[in-house]
Amino acid sequence: MTAHGYCMQIAVIGHGQASSQECEAAYATGRTIAENGAVLVCGGLGGVMEAACRGAQEAGGITVGILPGTEGGNPYLDITIPTGLGIARNAVVVLSGDAVIAVGGIYGTLSEIAIALKTGRPVYGIHTWDIEGVIPCSSPEEAVTRAMNEAARHGTA
Amino acid sequence: MTAHGYCMQIAVIGHGQASSQECEAAYATGRTIAENGAVLVCGGLGGVMEAACRGAQEAGGITVGILPGTEGGNPYLDITIPTGLGIARNAVVVLSGDAVIAVGGIYGTLSEIAIALKTGRPVYGIHTWDIEGVIPCSSPEEAVTRAMNEAARHGTA
Amino acid sequence: MTAHGYCMQIAVIGHGQASSQECEAAYATGRTIAENGAVLVCGGLGGVMEAACRGAQEAGGITVGILPGTEGGNPYLDITIPTGLGIARNAVVVLSGDAVIAVGGIYGTLSEIAIALKTGRPVYGIHTWDIEGVIPCSSPEEAVTRAMNEAARHGTA
Amino acid sequence: MTAHGYCMQIAVIGHGQASSQECEAAYATGRTIAENGAVLVCGGLGGVMEAACRGAQEAGGITVGILPGTEGGNPYLDITIPTGLGIARNAVVVLSGDAVIAVGGIYGTLSEIAIALKTGRPVYGIHTWDIEGVIPCSSPEEAVTRAMNEAARHGTA
Repeated sequence: MTAHGYCMQIAVIGHGQASSQECEAAYATGRTIAENGAVLVCGGLGGVMEAACRGAQEAGGITVGILPGTEGGNPYLDITIPTGLGIARNAVVVLSGDAVIAVGGIYGTLSEIAIALKTGRPVYGIHTWDIEGVIPCSSPEEAVTRAMNEAARHGTA
Repeated sequence: MTAHGYCMQIAVIGHGQASSQECEAAYATGRTIAENGAVLVCGGLGGVMEAACRGAQEAGGITVGILPGTEGGNPYLDITIPTGLGIARNAVVVLSGDAVIAVGGIYGTLSEIAIALKTGRPVYGIHTWDIEGVIPCSSPEEAVTRAMNEAARHGTA
Repeated sequence: MTAHGYCMQIAVIGHGQASSQECEAAYATGRTIAENGAVLVCGGLGGVMEAACRGAQEAGGITVGILPGTEGGNPYLDITIPTGLGIARNAVVVLSGDAVIAVGGIYGTLSEIAIALKTGRPVYGIHTWDIEGVIPCSSPEEAVTRAMNEAARHGTA
Repeated sequence: MTAHGYCMQIAVIGHGQASSQECEAAYATGRTIAENGAVLVCGGLGGVMEAACRGAQEAGGITVGILPGTEGGNPYLDITIPTGLGIARNAVVVLSGDAVIAVGGIYGTLSEIAIALKTGRPVYGIHTWDIEGVIPCSSPEEAVTRAMNEAARHGTA
């Protein structure tokens, strides 16, 4: 890895045991994030998180996994943050994103969507919870483009 | 306060700036929790949290406020836990309840509902988010009774 | 338990596997805290924490255990806060005390002493780490009396 | 930044308002960490943290700042983790290091040293607290070399 200062950071959230369709969407999301020069932040576990990391790494990007436990993490993490915070780490994942992209997901993902909306992060959704404030997108590319444009507009990057 | 060992703990969640209708429901919820001998746990701030604490204290109950900051809290707290954890304290509020009662609420409350469902706490709702898994109740009394019965059934008290 | 509003909260810290001498000191510390009408806050586990809680409960006081995990706790807790935060819960224990009393202790206790001094809590020590800022006391009674006087002087109760 | 999978992560801890001597040592520490291909993790603020990050970036390395607040951070961070956890973020900083290097420091640093020793991270010290378990080093180069050798020996990288 070679540093060149602060990059935009996009958080990808979703379930640790996702369907193959969700994993495909997550993979494309991670890939597109990396191709756009942003850092991928996630919860560091399997399913959507792992697929997104794999996509980002294959496109030469940087991946950050913010784990609930104190060890482990999927094999596609460049930076590992083993918080030991349990479920409270969900807040750290969301706060670390200039924007958030949700792919599918159950209650853990819903908690992250809610924290993102509470703390003013824009949230883009791909087949995820239908919550007021989440902007539904029809493709990973649309979600990443809109997330990066909105984050840039707020001068966070 | 006179101790007599572990009591059931019921978490009441809702917005810090609630309508008078929500505050009335929260007050009755807190009062009923105390009348049933349970401890009221909440986020320690205003609105729904303060009304519930006032109700519980007036009925002779114990109130616990788990704050996001390192000071403050509403005037009706017996025990104050100033976590300094920011939004991550929402997880601690929910984990501290054997059951959770949601009154109204916006995104912060939604994050707590989601964490509760993720971690297996039963959630009873009074005019709150319509999320699968939340059990809607028509009155504070119904919510408290069902919350305490369910928590007791799981041997947590 | 019968509520009467905010009481002073004293945090007792020490090792989960303590010597019998440390447990005796912790027991007397908890007892004296309760006799003085303060609430005992601790990490909720065994050793020094359990002995202090037992002392406080036997004197009719209230005990609060802020656990690193999401369940368990010693048998002498009135209020249980199962944070799931792991080692990060040490910060919450310390922040919840208007003053801190350390009995013996190894590295976990040292981390709590340091956080207390960093965040401006007065720390009283009984056979504990010799760190600048910790006020050594020759008895549990002296530690509790000085802790409560100092906390009261700062208007925190 | 170009990814090539997991690198060893070294946490550098010290005060946010450090002496010029401490900042020089921190700069050299950061520089040496980067030259050895490891990722620098720190608390993301000024003083020792900023100097270490500057050193690491100038040598082409990657820097990670785990902030107590929800914004800000020094200008030499590649990855920013704005936790909002307050003082509890100290635990996350330490857990994110395969080894820890302490440069000077007051109580915050002491809390991190204690958490590191409690959770089994090797700690190397440059003019820091004299605590049993901390291995004193006479130069940044010695500290980094020993930290990386020890972390490698435990198969964490």
